[in-house]
Amino acid sequence: MLRLATPDYLRFIQSQSLNATFGGGEANVAVSLANYGIPVDFVTRLPKNDIAEWCISELRKYNVGVENSVRGGERVGIYFLETGAVARASKVIYDRANSAIADIKPGMVNWEVIFKDAQWFHWTGITPALSQGAADACLEAVNVANKMGVTVSCDLNFRKNLWKYGKKAAEIMPALVEGCDIILGNEEDAEKVFDIKPEGFDVSNTGGEVDAAAFESVCVQLMQRFPRAKKVIITLRGSINANHNTWGGCLYSDKLYLSKTYDITHIVDRVGGGDSFMGGLIYGLITYPSDDQKALEFAVAASCLKHTIYGDFNLVTVSEVENLLKGDGSGRVSR
Amino acid sequence: MLRLATPDYLRFIQSQSLNATFGGGEANVAVSLANYGIPVDFVTRLPKNDIAEWCISELRKYNVGVENSVRGGERVGIYFLETGAVARASKVIYDRANSAIADIKPGMVNWEVIFKDAQWFHWTGITPALSQGAADACLEAVNVANKMGVTVSCDLNFRKNLWKYGKKAAEIMPALVEGCDIILGNEEDAEKVFDIKPEGFDVSNTGGEVDAAAFESVCVQLMQRFPRAKKVIITLRGSINANHNTWGGCLYSDKLYLSKTYDITHIVDRVGGGDSFMGGLIYGLITYPSDDQKALEFAVAASCLKHTIYGDFNLVTVSEVENLLKGDGSGRVSR
Amino acid sequence: MLRLATPDYLRFIQSQSLNATFGGGEANVAVSLANYGIPVDFVTRLPKNDIAEWCISELRKYNVGVENSVRGGERVGIYFLETGAVARASKVIYDRANSAIADIKPGMVNWEVIFKDAQWFHWTGITPALSQGAADACLEAVNVANKMGVTVSCDLNFRKNLWKYGKKAAEIMPALVEGCDIILGNEEDAEKVFDIKPEGFDVSNTGGEVDAAAFESVCVQLMQRFPRAKKVIITLRGSINANHNTWGGCLYSDKLYLSKTYDITHIVDRVGGGDSFMGGLIYGLITYPSDDQKALEFAVAASCLKHTIYGDFNLVTVSEVENLLKGDGSGRVSR
Amino acid sequence: MLRLATPDYLRFIQSQSLNATFGGGEANVAVSLANYGIPVDFVTRLPKNDIAEWCISELRKYNVGVENSVRGGERVGIYFLETGAVARASKVIYDRANSAIADIKPGMVNWEVIFKDAQWFHWTGITPALSQGAADACLEAVNVANKMGVTVSCDLNFRKNLWKYGKKAAEIMPALVEGCDIILGNEEDAEKVFDIKPEGFDVSNTGGEVDAAAFESVCVQLMQRFPRAKKVIITLRGSINANHNTWGGCLYSDKLYLSKTYDITHIVDRVGGGDSFMGGLIYGLITYPSDDQKALEFAVAASCLKHTIYGDFNLVTVSEVENLLKGDGSGRVSR
Amino acid sequence: MLRLATPDYLRFIQSQSLNATFGGGEANVAVSLANYGIPVDFVTRLPKNDIAEWCISELRKYNVGVENSVRGGERVGIYFLETGAVARASKVIYDRANSAIADIKPGMVNWEVIFKDAQWFHWTGITPALSQGAADACLEAVNVANKMGVTVSCDLNFRKNLWKYGKKAAEIMPALVEGCDIILGNEEDAEKVFDIKPEGFDVSNTGGEVDAAAFESVCVQLMQRFPRAKKVIITLRGSINANHNTWGGCLYSDKLYLSKTYDITHIVDRVGGGDSFMGGLIYGLITYPSDDQKALEFAVAASCLKHTIYGDFNLVTVSEVENLLKGDGSGRVSR
Amino acid sequence: MLRLATPDYLRFIQSQSLNATFGGGEANVAVSLANYGIPVDFVTRLPKNDIAEWCISELRKYNVGVENSVRGGERVGIYFLETGAVARASKVIYDRANSAIADIKPGMVNWEVIFKDAQWFHWTGITPALSQGAADACLEAVNVANKMGVTVSCDLNFRKNLWKYGKKAAEIMPALVEGCDIILGNEEDAEKVFDIKPEGFDVSNTGGEVDAAAFESVCVQLMQRFPRAKKVIITLRGSINANHNTWGGCLYSDKLYLSKTYDITHIVDRVGGGDSFMGGLIYGLITYPSDDQKALEFAVAASCLKHTIYGDFNLVTVSEVENLLKGDGSGRVSR
Repeated sequence: MLRLATPDYLRFIQSQSLNATFGGGEANVAVSLANYGIPVDFVTRLPKNDIAEWCISELRKYNVGVENSVRGGERVGIYFLETGAVARASKVIYDRANSAIADIKPGMVNWEVIFKDAQWFHWTGITPALSQGAADACLEAVNVANKMGVTVSCDLNFRKNLWKYGKKAAEIMPALVEGCDIILGNEEDAEKVFDIKPEGFDVSNTGGEVDAAAFESVCVQLMQRFPRAKKVIITLRGSINANHNTWGGCLYSDKLYLSKTYDITHIVDRVGGGDSFMGGLIYGLITYPSDDQKALEFAVAASCLKHTIYGDFNLVTVSEVENLLKGDGSGRVSR
Repeated sequence: MLRLATPDYLRFIQSQSLNATFGGGEANVAVSLANYGIPVDFVTRLPKNDIAEWCISELRKYNVGVENSVRGGERVGIYFLETGAVARASKVIYDRANSAIADIKPGMVNWEVIFKDAQWFHWTGITPALSQGAADACLEAVNVANKMGVTVSCDLNFRKNLWKYGKKAAEIMPALVEGCDIILGNEEDAEKVFDIKPEGFDVSNTGGEVDAAAFESVCVQLMQRFPRAKKVIITLRGSINANHNTWGGCLYSDKLYLSKTYDITHIVDRVGGGDSFMGGLIYGLITYPSDDQKALEFAVAASCLKHTIYGDFNLVTVSEVENLLKGDGSGRVSR
Repeated sequence: MLRLATPDYLRFIQSQSLNATFGGGEANVAVSLANYGIPVDFVTRLPKNDIAEWCISELRKYNVGVENSVRGGERVGIYFLETGAVARASKVIYDRANSAIADIKPGMVNWEVIFKDAQWFHWTGITPALSQGAADACLEAVNVANKMGVTVSCDLNFRKNLWKYGKKAAEIMPALVEGCDIILGNEEDAEKVFDIKPEGFDVSNTGGEVDAAAFESVCVQLMQRFPRAKKVIITLRGSINANHNTWGGCLYSDKLYLSKTYDITHIVDRVGGGDSFMGGLIYGLITYPSDDQKALEFAVAASCLKHTIYGDFNLVTVSEVENLLKGDGSGRVSR
Repeated sequence: MLRLATPDYLRFIQSQSLNATFGGGEANVAVSLANYGIPVDFVTRLPKNDIAEWCISELRKYNVGVENSVRGGERVGIYFLETGAVARASKVIYDRANSAIADIKPGMVNWEVIFKDAQWFHWTGITPALSQGAADACLEAVNVANKMGVTVSCDLNFRKNLWKYGKKAAEIMPALVEGCDIILGNEEDAEKVFDIKPEGFDVSNTGGEVDAAAFESVCVQLMQRFPRAKKVIITLRGSINANHNTWGGCLYSDKLYLSKTYDITHIVDRVGGGDSFMGGLIYGLITYPSDDQKALEFAVAASCLKHTIYGDFNLVTVSEVENLLKGDGSGRVSR
Repeated sequence: MLRLATPDYLRFIQSQSLNATFGGGEANVAVSLANYGIPVDFVTRLPKNDIAEWCISELRKYNVGVENSVRGGERVGIYFLETGAVARASKVIYDRANSAIADIKPGMVNWEVIFKDAQWFHWTGITPALSQGAADACLEAVNVANKMGVTVSCDLNFRKNLWKYGKKAAEIMPALVEGCDIILGNEEDAEKVFDIKPEGFDVSNTGGEVDAAAFESVCVQLMQRFPRAKKVIITLRGSINANHNTWGGCLYSDKLYLSKTYDITHIVDRVGGGDSFMGGLIYGLITYPSDDQKALEFAVAASCLKHTIYGDFNLVTVSEVENLLKGDGSGRVSR
Repeated sequence: MLRLATPDYLRFIQSQSLNATFGGGEANVAVSLANYGIPVDFVTRLPKNDIAEWCISELRKYNVGVENSVRGGERVGIYFLETGAVARASKVIYDRANSAIADIKPGMVNWEVIFKDAQWFHWTGITPALSQGAADACLEAVNVANKMGVTVSCDLNFRKNLWKYGKKAAEIMPALVEGCDIILGNEEDAEKVFDIKPEGFDVSNTGGEVDAAAFESVCVQLMQRFPRAKKVIITLRGSINANHNTWGGCLYSDKLYLSKTYDITHIVDRVGGGDSFMGGLIYGLITYPSDDQKALEFAVAASCLKHTIYGDFNLVTVSEVENLLKGDGSGRVSR
């Protein structure tokens, strides 16, 4: 997906140029993993035009395999981004209707071939939000992955401005999530998609500290509803303002693991923060299979760093994440 | 329509930003006329979002009325532009499907109200190329204009990469052009749309000098086919290379008028060249109603200057065009 | 007025380009109101050159009427802006001498015609600071407005580096302010212009929290001195450093109304902050004529948002201000 | 003088930034000479503000002495530049009224001290065009230079949009030119300032080849009128269009010397072309005192190169000019 | 190699930023081939730092394999580029001493493994110019390639400002060229490296048309001296000025094949022109093994297009080259 | 030294341009002093190429004498800078090997001539880290300065990634520091170079507040070891994160003087912070010879302002520093 963002905190109406990068939930996770040295393939559908070639070249640059993506359809999806500051929120305008991926249909991708040597399949709630075909193709992939023993993870990623094709998230998502081993969400997703609310927590609270304990209730409910899930993870963002957030997460498996909370006082770009969490989490779960706390902390530290990096992609290495995990968040010049 | 162009002759794959301006056939003509002091209104359909507000603000900046445009639909149409050089052609990638104007339907615009004090209605062949609805709405406007005695002009503007909704230009355009008093085209339009070819002229010739006399034959055939037309005008572009064109035009009414030919050796931006010709022509025909040669020369000089101006719009004044008409093309510093 | 600002916190001596926007007290207020949907006209004097056309086109872009401005004089006023950071203050260098507006004289503008259907006239203390002619023309306007029953508001806006034509603010301003229904100022204006000091408040204090109660004393003194005034409003800026301010205001009418205080931790551009307050206030007073608290809160929230927007103009809508008034200052991405 | 130029051939109305450099007739000549290794001092008057410091720092960067400039006055003069292309001329808008140098008065500069070890004094017709005071100060300098045996050169440099203080060039210039040993002008200056026309040459011709022979007549008339002048030099610009000029010159002393003519097909920046000619000429006359042809050719080659360099200053070295003089204008990569 | 180029024709001394791209003889050829769909691997030596990672990511972006490059050494080589205009030549300043590739030694690369499935090995005369080690490693590669039956091509690419390690090109190059099947050079290389001069051709002529027939003599002499060579190719550049070149080539195998000559009137970037010729030639020779004329024309057309593309790399597709071969150099907008 | 920095917090791998400025320990101190009106000369060694001329022109711009620098050698040293944010540290990649200054040898500079009218000589620990020759030349300078009675100061400035020529700082630095009257360092230098640790202070602590008292112990140990030293100064940086530091210093002479601590919440550029401290300190010690507290406070305030200025150089005036010393750190707009 092409991301077109106004530079320097400008509003759209003031701009004469747009910074052009590429992103999107699954692509962002793929780039994270490639940066950590994990072989990764991004499977999507792209038209045959120069905008698509541009997109592919950027993924290739960051070492993400793109050979399994299929070509066809009309256009590359776009989202416009106006970066906010302090009390003025960033604005995303989706322009994804009729994109090649929105026009995908089951059968277009040969999942059996793709999953042959694969260990893990990740999808996000943005894909089934685009169209019935995308939802169907996603379900097809989940089913094949389940059959072939590939671990499946998802990021619920509810976006109210998508889901325009006549179905509600609540109608489509359950079948998909049923096939997932790992579920990631934030505080709104569980409620908006599955009507699962924590007890004693007010989700209308949009800023400040969050009560992590309340999320245990959400996790437990999710795992009861989707018994295949072994782990449920929730990102915890405290939105002090558009430039200043706190950031952490919790993971529920045998019990609730709670991460360190980072104070991100001068955000460079928070879009893709959740995806960078997922990328760090997958790396962490693969690398520390028996240490959920460590996996979680890796995910949180990795995505804390994402907030300092422009664009959707999290361009950090394992050793940079580990430095932060060791406690060096002082930002002293490395020379 | 949002125009997203790579800067500095970069290819898409090399770019990190896109220059964002607005344009489109009818809007470009409107801006030309507003610059010449002619009150002008741009009627289109735009969605209710910030990209549309941005578009509207740019038109307002150049003094084009936008109050009669209707609001609704999903998205603002986009075209991507990669500016070529020498033997490498500029590339336009249309991303207009599903735009608000493509989804227009007859009845959405109240043409009777809009044409109330209007003198002139101009449309281009791009609009009916977008969708059946757009073609229908365009025909509706032409019919109302005819009924109300408003002069109608059109620019045939054939684009092979539009016309994707199942109809061919040859099926749709005749009914529309029948209502036109003034017809503008270039050397390909007449052939591609109406299969009208000059005798003794090879349209496959894409460079060098053109044989203006051959166009008389085209004009006469067009006027025979569309008897309402009082004047047929053809722009004459000699494409030496992407940076260097010759530029002129001919107008057929009672006889063939041939303009001076300009040598444009260092093109800044040639997109919108034909529209700036049309803008100059309408101004010329209104201002010099009994002097077709003068009207034509104004149109050619105005659009010669357009090639030196970035973006789709021709930002020149009447006095700047007149200076060139007086023969001062020396480009000496004015101080 | 042309604003030429160094980019990216550069000092003048380091720069190779200057960002060019337009601004100025009254223009800034006009743009705010236009954004809120209030029909508004900006009356000034501009020369006949391309810099003036540029200025006019920018105002038109933001929907401000400019037809009533008169043309003549030598130049467009300029101010140079070097944006500071932390302990380094921003620097404004005025280059306004001899500008068209500084050379205005009474009689050049036909105020009777302009005020015919007008409801409100706003001026700022910057205009009479430019020249005797500008002061005289301003007084002329105030007098006509008073005669025609148009509400008059002013922003005292004392600038020590203007007022160079041989008169002091204290000599010129009283006659002007006598015609005002609404008076806006900040903590320095009242003292520097009218020698009105709060009791128990040290105005040399340039940072930190301010004692709002002390301002009641200032308001009461101002209203006693200018009995036409129905409301006196004071903006309350706490300058922690160049990037971080607190922001609020108080309004005195029947009693003192005190606004919420906002913590603006990452200022994008604070120039025009006071003008955006005035724009919000006029909108608020018109929209909530019997609720001074609400009008004040609208003004403060609107101008809080201004600090996040580049340039002099406050490019926000009523609904964006209302969102903040509802308490959502979390800056969460809107998508 | 601060030069504010739109980037990338944009018109003012399209721009959001202006490139900021410094220039002006005498400063440009000074920079040329400093680049050729000639010790040089620029004497002007500048206010005490950061814009003036910025200007001074740029001159210092290019090795021009600035210690003898006096400080005072209100503002730094400005000129706005919109760069044209092909048939659209570049536009200069002067904003120099009330500048520190325009407010200079005789007696402000101690010419006796400045000329103590000086060999050469150069002034241009722009200075006396600014104000009576500037004309008087210029005359004072010429008189002192004459008295102290310092060679005096001038560039007539007629600008119709200056000369606004009530005097015509024809009234002021003769007394100044009388003190000059070397006079430089172009084809318009002699006519516009002294009503000296070549016989058989049509100065209204603004493009194409010029008849160099006709200039001999101008030179002879100038030398008869100003008997102190030992050499009269005329720059010969053929303006094919804004991007493409021919460039040469002729020098009359004992006879007419005519230079090679250069074909400058892709101009980068032609402002300052005449000044770079003068800089090259002074260097040439000093370096080859008995070879006027060589001095002239150096001047022409140096200023030919200027057309390839952005800004007012000619940033080339003696060896680069000499390479071109040797005939290498092929532009092959030097590596 | 990191290329740091001043933007917009600026001289170094005027710049505040440098455009950063990557290039170098062999890398440029590799990118060309990758764009034509030929699997290609770039073998070099790069240090372990972020500048090297940046370089690698750019090659990967354009689909060039980099896995076989070895890591070690101190720095990435740099070249600074100042882009000239008209009579001012572009300037390249090499800063390659001590780079990782300059410190390469035989044995560091396992050529047997690399050439296992390879069809073609290409090297340029720049590599042996860097150091004895680089020359030795290059010879090692040529020898292995010869042994393994891999076609070897070279571009003589003489650069006088390299060759600083105590050996002359004439001492080193013969042994290397002896192993080549295909030799590419321009008019200076043969003379400067092997003292082979055409009869009746004056190489000091730096501009205008070249006498292609004279090159036949050079080709024949080269083939006599290096009997392994099956084809000798010479690029023919006519340097009218820095913006305007003519471009063609000739190939000698069984006889002299002479290409069409292109008139490149508005060069965007000519650095890498020779490399793009080589890339096109290898593609042509592979694709049209029995049609040397066609291979040559492909090479010339491909590299003609390179002059319109910014950076060292030739970012064109086979179909774009073929369009030009079909005669469409008109630069008409493709839409 | 050429500094090449990615813009806008971009990582190297994302960049397409690098901001080019110049800097380096001693040069930065020189610019500070020149800004305070102290005549200053920068003595280095630079090659004869355009990059060196560029460097020299920038120093000249800021009024630093460069005539005593010697010319020769291969290249200008480079450092690459990637600016970090929050928990992501800035990264410096040195590319200084083989630079002209690294290849300096004793005898190349005539220190006797340079120090003739000099009052002060300053060097930094970066120079002896480059090469044995640079260390030897530095020692030569210190010895001559000592002999001629010139005050000598040094900044220990330990950089672990330099010191690659086979000697350790601990082997080279003592002889150099023995000749110093004033020693500046930070909390790591003393330990890393001289193994001097404070008692009760944990240097591995990279963030937060520091225990100033502990530094007294370091100062006393340094003065005992280097008895010529009259004053030892330590900069105290609290690294909260890459955007937010606290900043202060302490000076030990007759007793420990501790400065005010500044809270720098929105750092623009912290590179060169220590050098700006040294520049301020030298100015302070010269200006207030008997008031160490005042000298120290000047140094701290000056370098606090440096953090708000882009590039290595501290571009502030004495009066701007004094404003901050008077307590005005509010950042209110100066107009």
